[in-house]
Amino acid sequence: MIVKSQVKYIQSLAHKKYRDEEGVFVAEGPKIVNELLNNPAISPVNIFAISGWVEKDRSRISEKQLIEVSHAELDRISFLTTANQVLGIFKKPVFGKMNLKNKITLALDNIQDPGNAGTIVRIADWFGVEQVICSEDSADIFSPKVVQATMGSIARVQTSYTSLPEFISKHREIATYATVLDGADIKMVKPIKEGIIIIGNESKGISRELLGMVQHKITISRKGNAESLNAAVAAGIVLSHIAG
Amino acid sequence: MIVKSQVKYIQSLAHKKYRDEEGVFVAEGPKIVNELLNNPAISPVNIFAISGWVEKDRSRISEKQLIEVSHAELDRISFLTTANQVLGIFKKPVFGKMNLKNKITLALDNIQDPGNAGTIVRIADWFGVEQVICSEDSADIFSPKVVQATMGSIARVQTSYTSLPEFISKHREIATYATVLDGADIKMVKPIKEGIIIIGNESKGISRELLGMVQHKITISRKGNAESLNAAVAAGIVLSHIAG
Repeated sequence: MIVKSQVKYIQSLAHKKYRDEEGVFVAEGPKIVNELLNNPAISPVNIFAISGWVEKDRSRISEKQLIEVSHAELDRISFLTTANQVLGIFKKPVFGKMNLKNKITLALDNIQDPGNAGTIVRIADWFGVEQVICSEDSADIFSPKVVQATMGSIARVQTSYTSLPEFISKHREIATYATVLDGADIKMVKPIKEGIIIIGNESKGISRELLGMVQHKITISRKGNAESLNAAVAAGIVLSHIAG
Repeated sequence: MIVKSQVKYIQSLAHKKYRDEEGVFVAEGPKIVNELLNNPAISPVNIFAISGWVEKDRSRISEKQLIEVSHAELDRISFLTTANQVLGIFKKPVFGKMNLKNKITLALDNIQDPGNAGTIVRIADWFGVEQVICSEDSADIFSPKVVQATMGSIARVQTSYTSLPEFISKHREIATYATVLDGADIKMVKPIKEGIIIIGNESKGISRELLGMVQHKITISRKGNAESLNAAVAAGIVLSHIAG
């Protein structure tokens, strides 16, 4: 059974302001929720689940954190089009200071689409990239849609928000890479062990200010006629070639 | 002004059955609609547009095919969350017989997510891949969501639906490639000029029957902990490495 104040609380977490104030985020569906419950870096606050999940997975969480709900109740609190067995509220992971030495860091410049932002975090996790810096106008990584798109990688990839030009100015000793339309063919770029790779907005590209600061401009050669590549696809291609 | 029968007709095009019967598809927003209107391979049936689009772009289409609508009317017929100036009904392109010789062909095995299916068509277009064969359980390429995700590439990439195992059996002379978890590292695979590259469902992978028929199994090496890559991202990575 769920009470009205809980419904209101969960609905408030659609807004960044309340997620930030509470230091929590929402994840849904047995796949992601169970993966987060298995992850020692992530603490659950409450799990709201229908009887099917409760029967199978109740041992994953302490009794007092678990609230069994009806299908109708889950529908009411779910952010998904179709609610999927379980909704969890988790404390946001607390990461240490980022270290750029001997590491590849992704920087997202104005990536507003939540699906793209989440997919990029998942791609980073696939290629062993442990940290992603986002410009302040990028989608909030802890919004429900982004969390779903990360497929559990949200807990393994360190994220933070800052002004990218300031960040890059402060770390002049780290090489910077970005995809542009007239750079070096990515097939010719040597794999790297350290660097900041900037992924830009797919319709606007990388902001002019940032572009002026980039040392290595690279291109995914086009052979056909599509106007652009999806930002997440471009991130995957770049990492597959140069994450050494 | 739009009449009730037109509203009903457009709404019916949400269903594959009616799109097939009528041989048409819907595209929305000035970017895609204008690109389709510029494409000699695509014939418009009707364009429904608000005054802003009509003033700027009316010369793109004959007067009798153009129906000016109010914002409220466009909202009623739009398949988007937020209607975007113009909705076009177009005749499906009629493609000739596919030729597999000296070409790269993508094969989509059970790609059900419309966003992924559309993004893969757009990626194919970027890398100059002119034809995509889809298994019968894949998303319909001409559904409104897929059309939007192709960003205009729908008109440049030839698509068809068939049983993939039968198709591959019939074309034994063409080399087949697929991504699996334990194949050859994609960085070691030589670029190709001809072949069928199979993209599988991201949670189920490639169907067992198909997998038994694949000659070249390739892997996008994982260095981190994500469980899988998005199917469109995988398609982009494979093409960026081996589309020679």
